[in-house]
Amino acid sequence: MGDKPEAWQAAPGDMPPDEFRTHGHRLVEWIADYMQHGERYPVLSRANPGQIRASLPSGPPHSPESLDRVLGDLDEVILPGITHWNQPGFLAYFAITGSAPGVLGEMLASALNVNAMLWRASPAATELEEVVLDWLRQLVGLPDSFDGVIYDTASIGSLIAIAAAREAVGLDIRRRGMAGRGDLPRLRLYCSEHAHSSIEKDAITLGFGTEGVRKVVVDGDQRMDATALRQDVEEDIRSGWRPFCVVATVGTTSATSIDPLPEIADVCRDHRIWLHVDAVYGGLAAILPEMRWVLDGAERADSIIFNPHKWLFTPLDCNAFYSRRLDVVRDAFSLVPPAYLQTPEGDEVKDFMNYGPQLGRRFRGLKLWFVLRTYGAEGLRARLRDHIRLARMFAEWVAGDPDWEVMAPVPFSTVCFRARPGEVPASQLDALNLAIEQRVNASGKIFISHTVLGETVALRVAIGHIRTGERHLRSAWDELTRALSSSRPVPTRTSSPAGAAQHTRD
Amino acid sequence: MGDKPEAWQAAPGDMPPDEFRTHGHRLVEWIADYMQHGERYPVLSRANPGQIRASLPSGPPHSPESLDRVLGDLDEVILPGITHWNQPGFLAYFAITGSAPGVLGEMLASALNVNAMLWRASPAATELEEVVLDWLRQLVGLPDSFDGVIYDTASIGSLIAIAAAREAVGLDIRRRGMAGRGDLPRLRLYCSEHAHSSIEKDAITLGFGTEGVRKVVVDGDQRMDATALRQDVEEDIRSGWRPFCVVATVGTTSATSIDPLPEIADVCRDHRIWLHVDAVYGGLAAILPEMRWVLDGAERADSIIFNPHKWLFTPLDCNAFYSRRLDVVRDAFSLVPPAYLQTPEGDEVKDFMNYGPQLGRRFRGLKLWFVLRTYGAEGLRARLRDHIRLARMFAEWVAGDPDWEVMAPVPFSTVCFRARPGEVPASQLDALNLAIEQRVNASGKIFISHTVLGETVALRVAIGHIRTGERHLRSAWDELTRALSSSRPVPTRTSSPAGAAQHTRD
Repeated sequence: MGDKPEAWQAAPGDMPPDEFRTHGHRLVEWIADYMQHGERYPVLSRANPGQIRASLPSGPPHSPESLDRVLGDLDEVILPGITHWNQPGFLAYFAITGSAPGVLGEMLASALNVNAMLWRASPAATELEEVVLDWLRQLVGLPDSFDGVIYDTASIGSLIAIAAAREAVGLDIRRRGMAGRGDLPRLRLYCSEHAHSSIEKDAITLGFGTEGVRKVVVDGDQRMDATALRQDVEEDIRSGWRPFCVVATVGTTSATSIDPLPEIADVCRDHRIWLHVDAVYGGLAAILPEMRWVLDGAERADSIIFNPHKWLFTPLDCNAFYSRRLDVVRDAFSLVPPAYLQTPEGDEVKDFMNYGPQLGRRFRGLKLWFVLRTYGAEGLRARLRDHIRLARMFAEWVAGDPDWEVMAPVPFSTVCFRARPGEVPASQLDALNLAIEQRVNASGKIFISHTVLGETVALRVAIGHIRTGERHLRSAWDELTRALSSSRPVPTRTSSPAGAAQHTRD
Repeated sequence: MGDKPEAWQAAPGDMPPDEFRTHGHRLVEWIADYMQHGERYPVLSRANPGQIRASLPSGPPHSPESLDRVLGDLDEVILPGITHWNQPGFLAYFAITGSAPGVLGEMLASALNVNAMLWRASPAATELEEVVLDWLRQLVGLPDSFDGVIYDTASIGSLIAIAAAREAVGLDIRRRGMAGRGDLPRLRLYCSEHAHSSIEKDAITLGFGTEGVRKVVVDGDQRMDATALRQDVEEDIRSGWRPFCVVATVGTTSATSIDPLPEIADVCRDHRIWLHVDAVYGGLAAILPEMRWVLDGAERADSIIFNPHKWLFTPLDCNAFYSRRLDVVRDAFSLVPPAYLQTPEGDEVKDFMNYGPQLGRRFRGLKLWFVLRTYGAEGLRARLRDHIRLARMFAEWVAGDPDWEVMAPVPFSTVCFRARPGEVPASQLDALNLAIEQRVNASGKIFISHTVLGETVALRVAIGHIRTGERHLRSAWDELTRALSSSRPVPTRTSSPAGAAQHTRD
């Protein structure tokens, strides 16, 4: 130990705190301005493929650059390539929100930068996660037999549920795997054709293959047909398959339909199948007493997921996973920890790393805590209630106009609809609606998306941004009706006034 | 459309921008202070199990609470339960950094809140991700045949690599799955016993089971024995296994050993096995010209991962995945997108959702861009070089003291070592070192962890925080030597002075 510390050159260290202060304050102002005036940007980016890449250097800078330059490029280079998910005109996919308190929570999480892998790695990260999960459980009205874990995305939440279902089958797959075993049946998962695409991806990832997923037919309202599910399951059992998991959805992505949980739970009970409920969007509506019914039957599920990052004003990413059988989840994933992850606390605490594949875990409970506290149950309910109100208002506008029609029930905050002017033949309606979508999105004022129901294109307006209000819906409706006018075939001289007015609906 | 907008009640909306400003500025000051003076907190939280949970309400608040209260609770309730990963005394696991520019980048990402699932969903998010991945590729010196994707964690990056390896085997597993197929061999993956625990978890997740992972023996320096690997592979082939993946590590978690990539690549070439390199920590050292050798042979890998959130000052989470065969990754995961994810751009752009299970993708390229630009290649090199210097300095102190010994080579910034005072019998050294660890961590000044090499407990000092400097290492060494003094058996009256001075080393 003869070395003198002075002999060693000093470390360069981090940006000086005062510089962080200067730029941090500047960025707070930038974000406040973005929240207040971000509607000046076109919602859907107008960038062409490759345009942003072309405005960036092809290699990293050799020397440090000032944050001034970086923040300058933010405005000039990055923003033109941003599609503004965090603005109220965003009505596509499922609209989401990085709310003001959520942004502050996320900022703090990155400054603390804890990895919530083990309890000891930050007791507050683990315990706050437990607490906010329990708060959310109470808000949506699940029984306290459900315990939770926060994951990044619904894709992973469902992957973990399906892996737990595999574990619950009791075929020793965790140890022996699935390939090359003569003693295993083929394993099958069931969901409707409207289940989220991540379910099929999860099945592929977990080694069941696309053939391991059977898509159950839906009824006229896009809800899984539970009778068909029972028939599919029983037919598969006769053919030697082992049904091991059903994924039901509360609020499907296309039409926000609600699969009939009680009837599906009956099938799962009768055949000892793990029931996983994907309630990432629609299930959050259950924080409203008048919407609690959307989770009827969910208390019988083995696992259920919600995305606070979807319709609870929490910045990406935050998936709340609950299970009545968290021990099975743990069995599916926990290892005898390597020495470097063994801690003296042992079973006295919950080490979340044991409940999934990911060792690295951000402190996601923090932003959810900021959101739940600053809005309160009452504030969250008011906002969701308002979104549902706006959707019904929009649907009424659509239904009240003879040139348009609503394409699916509107239980939540999403409306599926299309233009169907009488003079346009049925075979051209898909093209017409896609043209309307493109024209509306080019306006820059709103951004909507589309889906296909049955074999018919439907436009979708999804309300989920915290600042979306009536004027945005009004603007959307104006753009849509204007786009229809411009897209309509010009009436020919030979068409009689009576003919033009005649709207045959089928 | 007869409804008047006025008839509908106004939406509650987000927190007013001025309130965001007030609290945002306050939080910037809080973070600046935390960066500057965070060393006043004990690095390892002293909270008892359940303590933080007990200080939080058991249910969510009914009414909105002010951010003042939330930020007040941050200091009073949360901080006592934080283990301070983002402070320079954190020397446990792999020490990481949420640097000042990284925190700003993360703050901005949460304010933009884009989901980078599709190019169209924010062209800048996709293209900036492509650009920074290419910058990082250049920095570590990988050839441009490697294309990248950012994932959340190394656990997922490796899962994707192993899934791609499964796809590359050509057994139609993506479609037909693995269970109940008489035509499949058993499939096996190889890694050393020092591979990260996530590799075994990934294998379990993907359906190979723990038996699908064969741990290859290591040499005296904890490096995978490539001759043993070849023997294991050939023995398995004779027994009917199909070897499909080898995971080599550059910088193992326990001892930061470097598996011999060229020899391993030869085995993989000879047996057509996918070679995945876990270089999440150690591989980043290759940004230093003098350390470029740690990736010798990596250019022959099929895939390789780095964690900028580990040793490149980027807040959690950020895993940089590269492959020479990204088309195989895409084949393993892409679906015909559902209608709601189809975009007019088609193959002209890269839709990152096709390269993994997760549809939700945070704008992680932004924080990496902030970090790469504000430090520059030169600044990053200076910091990594300094960390390596500090580790060697610390190892010299250990090696220079007869009561201590270094337990493994120190190629990077992590030192494995232990106390071995002559008077303590070999059978009691593990207990002695664990006692020292506990005592040192209780000091609150530093936080170290331990591992097991062979069957021997080794203490670990890992340098990765951007503000860790000599004084922290000096403090660590002081605490360690003090802890040894206090933990030493009290000399008995019968021991002669000569006996006490006699340090038998074995």
